[in-house]
Amino acid sequence: MLGYRMTLAYDGTAYAGWQVQPGLPTVQGTLEAALERIVGARVRVVASGRTDAGVHALAQVAGFRCTTRLAPEVLRRAINAHIPDDIYVAELQVAPDGFHAIRDALAKRYRYVIQDGPHRDLFARTTSWHLHSGLDVTQMQAGARYLVGRHDFRSFESAGAPRRHSVRTIYALRIERFARRRLQPLAIEVEADGFLYNMVRNIVGSLVLVGRGERPPDWIAQVLAACDRTQAGPTAPACGLMLWSVRYGAAAGGECADGP
Amino acid sequence: MLGYRMTLAYDGTAYAGWQVQPGLPTVQGTLEAALERIVGARVRVVASGRTDAGVHALAQVAGFRCTTRLAPEVLRRAINAHIPDDIYVAELQVAPDGFHAIRDALAKRYRYVIQDGPHRDLFARTTSWHLHSGLDVTQMQAGARYLVGRHDFRSFESAGAPRRHSVRTIYALRIERFARRRLQPLAIEVEADGFLYNMVRNIVGSLVLVGRGERPPDWIAQVLAACDRTQAGPTAPACGLMLWSVRYGAAAGGECADGP
Repeated sequence: MLGYRMTLAYDGTAYAGWQVQPGLPTVQGTLEAALERIVGARVRVVASGRTDAGVHALAQVAGFRCTTRLAPEVLRRAINAHIPDDIYVAELQVAPDGFHAIRDALAKRYRYVIQDGPHRDLFARTTSWHLHSGLDVTQMQAGARYLVGRHDFRSFESAGAPRRHSVRTIYALRIERFARRRLQPLAIEVEADGFLYNMVRNIVGSLVLVGRGERPPDWIAQVLAACDRTQAGPTAPACGLMLWSVRYGAAAGGECADGP
Repeated sequence: MLGYRMTLAYDGTAYAGWQVQPGLPTVQGTLEAALERIVGARVRVVASGRTDAGVHALAQVAGFRCTTRLAPEVLRRAINAHIPDDIYVAELQVAPDGFHAIRDALAKRYRYVIQDGPHRDLFARTTSWHLHSGLDVTQMQAGARYLVGRHDFRSFESAGAPRRHSVRTIYALRIERFARRRLQPLAIEVEADGFLYNMVRNIVGSLVLVGRGERPPDWIAQVLAACDRTQAGPTAPACGLMLWSVRYGAAAGGECADGP
Protein backbone atom coordinates (compact mmCIF):
# COMPACT_ATOMS: atom_id res chain seq x y z
CA MET A 1 0.00 0.00 0.00
CA LEU A 2 1.49 3.31 -1.13
CA GLY A 3 0.51 6.91 -0.41
CA TYR A 4 -0.12 9.24 -3.36
CA ARG A 5 -0.45 12.97 -3.62
CA MET A 6 -2.31 14.64 -6.46
CA THR A 7 -2.99 18.16 -7.67
CA LEU A 8 -6.33 18.62 -9.35
CA ALA A 9 -8.59 21.27 -10.84
CA TYR A 10 -12.37 21.22 -10.84
CA ASP A 11 -15.29 23.32 -11.97
CA GLY A 12 -17.56 23.16 -8.92
CA THR A 13 -20.74 24.20 -10.75
CA ALA A 14 -22.19 20.70 -10.98
CA TYR A 15 -21.06 19.49 -7.55
CA ALA A 16 -22.45 19.71 -4.03
CA GLY A 17 -18.91 20.52 -2.90
CA TRP A 18 -15.84 18.41 -2.22
CA GLN A 19 -17.09 16.15 0.55
CA VAL A 20 -19.04 12.95 -0.06
CA GLN A 21 -22.76 13.34 0.63
CA PRO A 22 -25.25 10.52 0.08
CA GLY A 23 -27.20 10.92 -3.14
CA LEU A 24 -25.40 14.08 -4.27
CA PRO A 25 -22.62 14.49 -6.85
CA THR A 26 -19.40 15.51 -5.08
CA VAL A 27 -15.81 15.85 -6.21
CA GLN A 28 -14.53 13.45 -3.56
CA GLY A 29 -17.22 10.90 -4.41
CA THR A 30 -16.44 11.13 -8.12
CA LEU A 31 -12.71 10.57 -7.54
CA GLU A 32 -13.27 7.72 -5.07
CA ALA A 33 -15.64 5.95 -7.50
CA ALA A 34 -13.03 6.28 -10.28
CA LEU A 35 -10.25 4.92 -8.07
CA GLU A 36 -12.40 2.02 -6.93
CA ARG A 37 -13.01 1.03 -10.56
CA ILE A 38 -9.29 1.31 -11.34
CA VAL A 39 -7.71 -0.44 -8.32
CA GLY A 40 -10.64 -2.69 -7.39
CA ALA A 41 -10.88 -1.56 -3.77
CA ARG A 42 -12.42 1.26 -1.73
CA VAL A 43 -10.07 4.25 -1.59
CA ARG A 44 -10.50 7.30 0.66
CA VAL A 45 -9.35 10.59 -0.88
CA VAL A 46 -8.47 13.42 1.54
CA ALA A 47 -8.16 16.98 0.24
CA SER A 48 -6.24 19.90 1.79
CA GLY A 49 -9.64 21.29 2.69
CA ARG A 50 -13.27 20.85 1.76
CA THR A 51 -14.66 23.30 -0.76
CA ASP A 52 -18.36 24.15 -0.66
CA ALA A 53 -21.04 23.54 -3.26
CA GLY A 54 -20.30 25.53 -6.41
CA VAL A 55 -16.76 26.55 -5.39
CA HIS A 56 -14.00 25.82 -7.92
CA ALA A 57 -10.40 24.71 -7.60
CA LEU A 58 -7.47 25.48 -9.86
CA ALA A 59 -4.98 23.44 -7.82
CA GLN A 60 -6.54 21.50 -4.96
CA VAL A 61 -4.16 18.98 -3.36
CA ALA A 62 -5.40 15.60 -2.18
CA GLY A 63 -3.88 12.41 -0.88
CA PHE A 64 -4.93 8.76 -0.89
CA ARG A 65 -3.48 5.30 -0.21
CA CYS A 66 -3.95 2.24 -2.39
CA THR A 67 -2.28 -0.82 -3.85
CA THR A 68 -1.74 -0.77 -7.59
CA ARG A 69 0.87 -1.88 -10.11
CA LEU A 70 0.25 1.22 -12.19
CA ALA A 71 3.01 3.83 -12.36
CA PRO A 72 1.86 7.23 -11.04
CA GLU A 73 1.60 8.79 -14.51
CA VAL A 74 -0.45 5.84 -15.78
CA LEU A 75 -2.65 6.01 -12.69
CA ARG A 76 -3.14 9.77 -13.27
CA ARG A 77 -4.30 9.15 -16.83
CA ALA A 78 -6.55 6.29 -15.74
CA ILE A 79 -8.26 8.54 -13.19
CA ASN A 80 -8.77 11.26 -15.81
CA ALA A 81 -10.26 8.68 -18.16
CA HIS A 82 -12.79 7.67 -15.48
CA ILE A 83 -14.03 11.13 -14.41
CA PRO A 84 -16.12 13.77 -16.22
CA ASP A 85 -14.33 16.63 -17.94
CA ASP A 86 -15.11 19.15 -15.19
CA ILE A 87 -12.49 17.52 -12.96
CA TYR A 88 -8.87 17.14 -14.04
CA VAL A 89 -5.93 15.56 -12.24
CA ALA A 90 -2.90 17.60 -13.34
CA GLU A 91 -0.22 15.88 -11.26
CA LEU A 92 0.09 12.64 -9.32
CA GLN A 93 3.14 11.27 -7.54
CA VAL A 94 4.06 8.93 -4.74
CA ALA A 95 3.72 10.96 -1.52
CA PRO A 96 6.46 11.26 1.10
CA ASP A 97 6.01 8.88 4.06
CA GLY A 98 3.24 10.00 6.35
CA PHE A 99 1.98 12.74 4.03
CA HIS A 100 -1.38 14.14 5.10
CA ALA A 101 -3.08 16.64 2.79
CA ILE A 102 -4.82 18.59 5.57
CA ARG A 103 -2.27 18.49 8.40
CA ASP A 104 0.77 19.24 6.23
CA ALA A 105 -0.71 22.23 4.37
CA LEU A 106 1.13 25.39 5.43
CA ALA A 107 -1.09 27.87 3.61
CA LYS A 108 -3.87 28.09 1.09
CA ARG A 109 -4.68 30.80 -1.36
CA TYR A 110 -8.22 31.54 -2.57
CA ARG A 111 -9.18 33.89 -5.38
CA TYR A 112 -12.57 35.55 -5.75
CA VAL A 113 -13.57 37.24 -9.03
CA ILE A 114 -16.15 40.02 -9.28
CA GLN A 115 -17.43 41.59 -12.49
CA ASP A 116 -18.62 45.04 -11.49
CA GLY A 117 -20.39 47.39 -13.85
CA PRO A 118 -23.29 47.36 -16.25
CA HIS A 119 -21.72 44.85 -18.67
CA ARG A 120 -20.86 41.25 -18.02
CA ASP A 121 -18.65 38.63 -19.63
CA LEU A 122 -20.95 35.67 -20.10
CA PHE A 123 -18.02 33.31 -20.63
CA ALA A 124 -17.09 33.94 -16.98
CA ARG A 125 -20.65 33.57 -15.69
CA THR A 126 -19.93 30.40 -13.72
CA THR A 127 -16.61 31.64 -12.32
CA SER A 128 -17.43 35.17 -11.16
CA TRP A 129 -20.00 37.26 -9.30
CA HIS A 130 -21.64 39.98 -11.37
CA LEU A 131 -22.59 43.23 -9.62
CA HIS A 132 -24.25 45.98 -11.63
CA SER A 133 -22.60 48.90 -9.86
CA GLY A 134 -18.90 49.69 -9.96
CA LEU A 135 -16.70 49.15 -6.91
CA ASP A 136 -14.01 51.48 -5.55
CA VAL A 137 -10.91 49.29 -5.38
CA THR A 138 -8.86 51.82 -3.40
CA GLN A 139 -11.44 51.87 -0.61
CA MET A 140 -11.62 48.07 -0.60
CA GLN A 141 -7.83 47.84 -0.36
CA ALA A 142 -7.89 50.24 2.58
CA GLY A 143 -10.48 48.07 4.33
CA ALA A 144 -8.63 44.85 3.51
CA ARG A 145 -5.49 46.04 5.32
CA TYR A 146 -7.19 45.57 8.69
CA LEU A 147 -7.60 41.86 8.01
CA VAL A 148 -3.99 40.99 7.29
CA GLY A 149 -2.19 39.32 10.19
CA ARG A 150 -3.17 37.03 13.07
CA HIS A 151 -6.72 37.70 14.25
CA ASP A 152 -9.82 36.05 15.60
CA PHE A 153 -11.96 35.90 12.46
CA ARG A 154 -15.17 34.79 14.21
CA SER A 155 -17.09 37.70 12.64
CA PHE A 156 -16.39 36.19 9.21
CA GLU A 157 -17.32 32.59 10.08
CA SER A 158 -20.72 31.28 9.00
CA ALA A 159 -22.64 29.10 11.40
CA GLY A 160 -22.71 25.36 10.89
CA ALA A 161 -19.10 24.24 11.24
CA PRO A 162 -17.78 24.77 14.77
CA ARG A 163 -13.99 24.94 15.06
CA ARG A 164 -11.82 24.56 18.15
CA HIS A 165 -10.72 28.14 17.74
CA SER A 166 -11.27 30.88 15.20
CA VAL A 167 -7.85 32.54 15.17
CA ARG A 168 -6.18 32.45 11.77
CA THR A 169 -3.34 34.31 10.06
CA ILE A 170 -3.93 36.06 6.77
CA TYR A 171 -0.52 36.40 5.09
CA ALA A 172 -1.72 38.45 2.14
CA LEU A 173 -4.93 40.00 0.87
CA ARG A 174 -4.61 41.55 -2.59
CA ILE A 175 -7.35 43.27 -4.57
CA GLU A 176 -6.69 44.25 -8.15
CA ARG A 177 -8.29 44.55 -11.55
CA PHE A 178 -7.13 42.35 -14.40
CA ALA A 179 -7.88 42.59 -18.09
CA ARG A 180 -10.39 40.20 -19.57
CA ARG A 181 -11.11 41.48 -23.06
CA ARG A 182 -12.57 44.98 -22.69
CA LEU A 183 -13.81 44.40 -19.16
CA GLN A 184 -11.63 44.67 -16.08
CA PRO A 185 -12.98 42.35 -13.44
CA LEU A 186 -11.69 42.48 -9.92
CA ALA A 187 -9.76 39.67 -8.24
CA ILE A 188 -9.55 39.36 -4.46
CA GLU A 189 -6.80 36.97 -3.39
CA VAL A 190 -6.50 35.81 0.20
CA GLU A 191 -3.65 33.68 1.50
CA ALA A 192 -3.91 32.31 5.03
CA ASP A 193 -2.75 29.42 7.20
CA GLY A 194 -6.32 28.22 7.31
CA PHE A 195 -9.88 29.36 6.71
CA LEU A 196 -13.06 29.27 8.75
CA TYR A 197 -16.35 28.18 7.21
CA ASN A 198 -17.27 30.68 4.42
CA MET A 199 -14.50 33.02 5.62
CA VAL A 200 -13.43 34.23 2.17
CA ARG A 201 -17.01 34.70 0.98
CA ASN A 202 -17.91 36.64 4.13
CA ILE A 203 -14.81 38.84 3.76
CA VAL A 204 -15.71 39.48 0.11
CA GLY A 205 -19.32 40.30 0.98
CA SER A 206 -18.09 42.81 3.57
CA LEU A 207 -15.47 44.40 1.31
CA VAL A 208 -18.15 44.86 -1.37
CA LEU A 209 -20.10 47.09 1.05
CA VAL A 210 -16.94 49.19 1.39
CA GLY A 211 -16.38 49.20 -2.39
CA ARG A 212 -19.92 50.50 -2.90
CA GLY A 213 -19.37 53.30 -0.40
CA GLU A 214 -22.01 51.92 1.98
CA ARG A 215 -19.39 51.52 4.71
CA PRO A 216 -16.04 53.26 5.33
CA PRO A 217 -12.84 51.17 5.20
CA ASP A 218 -12.36 51.24 8.98
CA TRP A 219 -15.74 49.59 9.44
CA ILE A 220 -13.85 46.37 8.59
CA ALA A 221 -11.74 46.88 11.73
CA GLN A 222 -14.91 47.28 13.81
CA VAL A 223 -16.43 44.12 12.37
CA LEU A 224 -13.24 42.17 13.06
CA ALA A 225 -13.07 43.44 16.66
CA ALA A 226 -16.73 42.63 17.31
CA CYS A 227 -16.20 38.84 16.98
CA ASP A 228 -19.83 38.67 15.92
CA ARG A 229 -21.00 37.28 12.58
CA THR A 230 -24.08 39.52 12.50
CA GLN A 231 -21.80 42.59 12.17
CA ALA A 232 -20.23 41.52 8.85
CA GLY A 233 -21.61 41.82 5.34
CA PRO A 234 -23.52 39.10 3.46
CA THR A 235 -21.90 35.91 2.16
CA ALA A 236 -20.77 36.35 -1.45
CA PRO A 237 -22.03 33.64 -3.84
CA ALA A 238 -19.98 30.45 -4.26
CA CYS A 239 -19.48 30.69 -8.03
CA GLY A 240 -16.93 33.53 -7.79
CA LEU A 241 -14.60 31.57 -5.50
CA MET A 242 -11.68 29.39 -6.53
CA LEU A 243 -9.12 27.54 -4.42
CA TRP A 244 -6.03 28.81 -6.22
CA SER A 245 -3.11 26.97 -4.62
CA VAL A 246 -2.00 25.08 -1.53
CA ARG A 247 1.46 25.48 -0.05
CA TYR A 248 3.33 22.57 1.58
CA GLY A 249 6.73 22.31 3.21
CA ALA A 250 9.57 20.52 1.45
CA ALA A 251 9.08 17.43 3.63
CA ALA A 252 5.50 17.08 2.42
CA GLY A 253 6.66 16.87 -1.17
CA GLY A 254 6.89 20.33 -2.54
CA GLU A 255 6.99 24.02 -1.96
CA CYS A 256 3.87 25.12 -3.71
CA ALA A 257 1.20 23.49 -5.79
CA ASP A 258 -0.01 25.87 -8.41
CA GLY A 259 -2.52 25.34 -11.19
CA PRO A 260 -1.83 24.46 -14.80
CA MET B 1 -41.67 50.74 -37.02
CA LEU B 2 -37.99 51.39 -36.35
CA GLY B 3 -34.88 49.42 -37.23
CA TYR B 4 -32.50 48.43 -34.44
CA ARG B 5 -28.98 47.12 -34.43
CA MET B 6 -27.56 45.10 -31.56
CA THR B 7 -24.23 43.60 -30.58
CA LEU B 8 -24.50 40.39 -28.60
CA ALA B 9 -22.39 37.63 -27.11
CA TYR B 10 -23.41 34.01 -26.70
CA ASP B 11 -22.04 30.73 -25.47
CA GLY B 12 -23.12 28.37 -28.23
CA THR B 13 -22.76 25.18 -26.16
CA ALA B 14 -26.48 24.73 -25.50
CA TYR B 15 -27.71 25.87 -28.92
CA ALA B 16 -28.24 24.20 -32.28
CA GLY B 17 -26.65 27.29 -33.85
CA TRP B 18 -27.94 30.75 -34.66
CA GLN B 19 -30.74 29.95 -37.09
CA VAL B 20 -34.26 28.99 -36.02
CA GLN B 21 -34.93 25.26 -36.34
CA PRO B 22 -38.22 23.70 -35.31
CA GLY B 23 -38.01 21.96 -31.95
CA LEU B 24 -34.38 22.92 -31.26
CA PRO B 25 -32.97 25.67 -29.04
CA THR B 26 -31.36 28.35 -31.21
CA VAL B 27 -29.97 31.80 -30.50
CA GLN B 28 -32.22 33.46 -33.07
CA GLY B 29 -35.27 31.64 -31.75
CA THR B 30 -34.46 32.63 -28.16
CA LEU B 31 -34.08 36.31 -29.09
CA GLU B 32 -37.22 36.35 -31.23
CA ALA B 33 -39.28 34.77 -28.44
CA ALA B 34 -38.00 37.40 -25.98
CA LEU B 35 -38.81 40.25 -28.36
CA GLU B 36 -42.28 38.86 -29.03
CA ARG B 37 -42.99 38.85 -25.28
CA ILE B 38 -41.67 42.41 -24.93
CA VAL B 39 -43.25 44.15 -27.94
CA GLY B 40 -46.27 41.86 -28.38
CA ALA B 41 -45.65 41.05 -32.04
CA ARG B 42 -43.55 38.66 -34.10
CA VAL B 43 -40.08 40.10 -34.76
CA ARG B 44 -37.51 38.67 -37.16
CA VAL B 45 -33.88 39.01 -36.03
CA VAL B 46 -31.21 38.89 -38.76
CA ALA B 47 -27.56 38.32 -37.79
CA SER B 48 -24.43 39.26 -39.75
CA GLY B 49 -24.07 35.55 -40.43
CA ARG B 50 -25.35 32.28 -39.04
CA THR B 51 -23.10 30.47 -36.62
CA ASP B 52 -23.26 26.67 -36.40
CA ALA B 53 -24.27 24.47 -33.50
CA GLY B 54 -21.84 24.89 -30.61
CA VAL B 55 -20.05 27.93 -32.09
CA HIS B 56 -19.74 30.98 -29.80
CA ALA B 57 -19.89 34.72 -30.41
CA LEU B 58 -18.16 37.49 -28.53
CA ALA B 59 -19.66 40.27 -30.66
CA GLN B 60 -22.23 39.08 -33.16
CA VAL B 61 -24.21 41.91 -34.80
CA ALA B 62 -27.91 41.54 -35.57
CA GLY B 63 -30.71 43.77 -36.77
CA PHE B 64 -34.48 43.75 -36.34
CA ARG B 65 -37.49 46.02 -36.89
CA CYS B 66 -40.32 46.56 -34.43
CA THR B 67 -42.68 49.10 -32.92
CA THR B 68 -42.11 49.92 -29.28
CA ARG B 69 -42.20 52.93 -26.96
CA LEU B 70 -39.17 51.64 -25.07
CA ALA B 71 -35.93 53.60 -25.40
CA PRO B 72 -33.09 51.48 -26.87
CA GLU B 73 -31.29 51.08 -23.52
CA VAL B 74 -34.53 50.01 -21.82
CA LEU B 75 -35.27 47.61 -24.66
CA ARG B 76 -31.74 46.15 -24.35
CA ARG B 77 -32.25 45.50 -20.64
CA ALA B 78 -35.69 44.04 -21.25
CA ILE B 79 -34.26 41.58 -23.77
CA ASN B 80 -31.50 40.57 -21.34
CA ALA B 81 -34.11 40.02 -18.64
CA HIS B 82 -36.03 37.66 -20.96
CA ILE B 83 -33.15 35.46 -22.18
CA PRO B 84 -31.00 32.87 -20.39
CA ASP B 85 -27.58 33.94 -19.09
CA ASP B 86 -25.66 32.29 -21.94
CA ILE B 87 -26.79 35.07 -24.31
CA TYR B 88 -26.08 38.74 -23.56
CA VAL B 89 -27.02 41.85 -25.54
CA ALA B 90 -24.15 44.28 -24.92
CA GLU B 91 -25.32 47.15 -27.14
CA LEU B 92 -28.54 48.18 -28.82
CA GLN B 93 -29.24 51.31 -30.80
CA VAL B 94 -31.56 52.63 -33.48
CA ALA B 95 -30.04 51.49 -36.79
CA PRO B 96 -29.32 53.84 -39.69
CA ASP B 97 -32.02 53.81 -42.37
CA GLY B 98 -31.91 50.67 -44.47
CA PHE B 99 -29.37 48.91 -42.24
CA HIS B 100 -29.02 45.22 -43.07
CA ALA B 101 -26.83 43.10 -40.80
CA ILE B 102 -25.70 40.68 -43.53
CA ARG B 103 -25.44 42.93 -46.57
CA ASP B 104 -23.69 45.82 -44.83
CA ALA B 105 -21.02 43.73 -43.08
CA LEU B 106 -17.62 44.55 -44.57
CA ALA B 107 -15.61 41.91 -42.77
CA LYS B 108 -15.86 39.37 -39.98
CA ARG B 109 -13.22 38.04 -37.67
CA TYR B 110 -13.30 34.54 -36.16
CA ARG B 111 -11.01 33.21 -33.48
CA TYR B 112 -10.26 29.54 -32.91
CA VAL B 113 -8.56 28.38 -29.69
CA ILE B 114 -6.54 25.16 -29.39
CA GLN B 115 -5.03 23.78 -26.20
CA ASP B 116 -2.15 21.60 -27.34
CA GLY B 117 -0.10 19.46 -25.01
CA PRO B 118 -0.63 16.87 -22.31
CA HIS B 119 -2.35 19.26 -19.87
CA ARG B 120 -5.66 21.01 -20.29
CA ASP B 121 -7.43 23.97 -18.74
CA LEU B 122 -10.82 22.60 -17.79
CA PHE B 123 -12.27 26.10 -17.39
CA ALA B 124 -11.80 26.53 -21.15
CA ARG B 125 -13.22 23.10 -22.03
CA THR B 126 -16.29 24.49 -23.82
CA THR B 127 -14.38 27.24 -25.64
CA SER B 128 -11.33 25.41 -27.00
CA TRP B 129 -10.19 22.24 -28.75
CA HIS B 130 -7.80 20.08 -26.74
CA LEU B 131 -5.11 18.16 -28.65
CA HIS B 132 -2.72 15.97 -26.69
CA SER B 133 0.33 16.61 -28.86
CA GLY B 134 2.07 19.95 -29.23
CA LEU B 135 1.80 21.96 -32.44
CA ASP B 136 4.60 23.79 -34.27
CA VAL B 137 3.30 27.35 -34.57
CA THR B 138 6.05 28.48 -36.98
CA GLN B 139 5.13 25.75 -39.46
CA MET B 140 1.44 26.61 -39.14
CA GLN B 141 2.18 30.30 -39.75
CA ALA B 142 4.15 29.37 -42.86
CA GLY B 143 1.21 27.34 -44.15
CA ALA B 144 -1.31 30.04 -43.26
CA ARG B 145 0.47 32.59 -45.46
CA TYR B 146 -0.80 30.83 -48.61
CA LEU B 147 -4.38 31.49 -47.58
CA VAL B 148 -4.19 35.27 -47.18
CA GLY B 149 -5.63 37.22 -50.11
CA ARG B 150 -8.39 36.66 -52.66
CA HIS B 151 -8.81 32.97 -53.52
CA ASP B 152 -11.36 30.34 -54.40
CA PHE B 153 -11.73 28.57 -51.05
CA ARG B 154 -13.83 25.67 -52.35
CA SER B 155 -11.38 23.15 -50.84
CA PHE B 156 -12.27 24.51 -47.41
CA GLU B 157 -16.05 24.52 -47.86
CA SER B 158 -18.08 21.71 -46.33
CA ALA B 159 -20.93 20.24 -48.34
CA GLY B 160 -24.50 21.24 -47.56
CA ALA B 161 -24.64 24.98 -48.14
CA PRO B 162 -24.20 25.85 -51.82
CA ARG B 163 -23.04 29.41 -52.52
CA ARG B 164 -23.18 31.36 -55.74
CA HIS B 165 -19.42 31.46 -55.76
CA SER B 166 -16.65 30.39 -53.41
CA VAL B 167 -14.18 33.23 -53.89
CA ARG B 168 -13.44 35.11 -50.66
CA THR B 169 -10.73 37.48 -49.44
CA ILE B 170 -8.85 36.71 -46.25
CA TYR B 171 -7.44 40.00 -44.96
CA ALA B 172 -5.48 38.55 -42.08
CA LEU B 173 -4.70 35.14 -40.61
CA ARG B 174 -2.76 35.29 -37.37
CA ILE B 175 -1.62 32.35 -35.26
CA GLU B 176 -0.11 32.98 -31.86
CA ARG B 177 0.12 31.66 -28.35
CA PHE B 178 -1.38 33.60 -25.48
CA ALA B 179 -0.96 33.09 -21.76
CA ARG B 180 -3.75 31.46 -19.80
CA ARG B 181 -2.33 30.73 -16.37
CA ARG B 182 0.58 28.33 -16.87
CA LEU B 183 -0.66 27.01 -20.19
CA GLN B 184 -0.15 28.75 -23.51
CA PRO B 185 -3.03 27.90 -25.79
CA LEU B 186 -2.95 28.82 -29.44
CA ALA B 187 -5.30 31.30 -31.08
CA ILE B 188 -5.96 31.28 -34.82
CA GLU B 189 -7.63 34.50 -35.97
CA VAL B 190 -9.06 34.82 -39.46
CA GLU B 191 -10.49 38.03 -40.86
CA ALA B 192 -12.25 37.88 -44.22
CA ASP B 193 -14.94 39.61 -46.26
CA GLY B 194 -17.06 36.47 -45.89
CA PHE B 195 -16.83 32.81 -45.02
CA LEU B 196 -17.98 29.60 -46.71
CA TYR B 197 -19.72 26.87 -44.73
CA ASN B 198 -17.26 25.52 -42.09
CA MET B 199 -14.42 27.47 -43.75
CA VAL B 200 -12.60 28.44 -40.54
CA ARG B 201 -12.98 24.98 -39.03
CA ASN B 202 -11.69 23.34 -42.22
CA ILE B 203 -8.73 25.73 -42.36
CA VAL B 204 -7.95 24.99 -38.70
CA GLY B 205 -8.22 21.22 -39.28
CA SER B 206 -5.76 21.52 -42.17
CA LEU B 207 -3.31 23.78 -40.33
CA VAL B 208 -3.28 21.30 -37.43
CA LEU B 209 -1.92 18.63 -39.80
CA VAL B 210 0.90 21.06 -40.65
CA GLY B 211 1.46 21.90 -36.98
CA ARG B 212 1.82 18.20 -36.18
CA GLY B 213 4.39 17.74 -38.94
CA GLU B 214 2.12 15.41 -40.90
CA ARG B 215 2.11 17.81 -43.87
CA PRO B 216 4.61 20.50 -44.98
CA PRO B 217 3.46 24.16 -45.01
CA ASP B 218 3.25 24.30 -48.83
CA TRP B 219 0.72 21.47 -48.79
CA ILE B 220 -1.78 24.22 -47.85
CA ALA B 221 -1.06 25.87 -51.24
CA GLN B 222 -1.74 22.56 -53.01
CA VAL B 223 -5.03 22.06 -51.16
CA LEU B 224 -6.13 25.61 -52.02
CA ALA B 225 -5.24 25.14 -55.72
CA ALA B 226 -7.06 21.79 -55.93
CA CYS B 227 -10.51 23.35 -55.33
CA ASP B 228 -11.52 19.99 -53.89
CA ARG B 229 -12.80 19.51 -50.33
CA THR B 230 -11.45 15.97 -50.11
CA GLN B 231 -7.88 17.33 -50.28
CA ALA B 232 -8.13 19.39 -47.07
CA GLY B 233 -7.83 18.26 -43.47
CA PRO B 234 -10.72 17.32 -41.19
CA THR B 235 -13.22 19.85 -39.80
CA ALA B 236 -12.10 21.10 -36.38
CA PRO B 237 -14.79 20.83 -33.65
CA ALA B 238 -17.26 23.70 -33.19
CA CYS B 239 -16.49 24.42 -29.52
CA GLY B 240 -13.12 26.05 -30.26
CA LEU B 241 -14.64 28.64 -32.61
CA MET B 242 -15.86 32.12 -31.71
CA LEU B 243 -17.18 34.92 -33.92
CA TRP B 244 -14.96 37.68 -32.55
CA SER B 245 -16.13 40.84 -34.30
CA VAL B 246 -17.98 42.19 -37.33
CA ARG B 247 -16.84 45.28 -39.18
CA TYR B 248 -19.32 47.75 -40.75
CA GLY B 249 -18.84 50.94 -42.72
CA ALA B 250 -19.64 54.29 -41.10
CA ALA B 251 -22.95 54.48 -42.99
CA ALA B 252 -24.12 51.25 -41.36
CA GLY B 253 -23.65 52.66 -37.92
CA GLY B 254 -20.09 52.09 -36.85
CA GLU B 255 -16.60 51.11 -37.72
CA CYS B 256 -16.16 47.97 -35.76
CA ALA B 257 -18.20 46.01 -33.28
CA ASP B 258 -15.95 44.40 -30.75
CA GLY B 259 -16.84 42.34 -27.72
CA PRO B 260 -17.23 43.54 -24.15
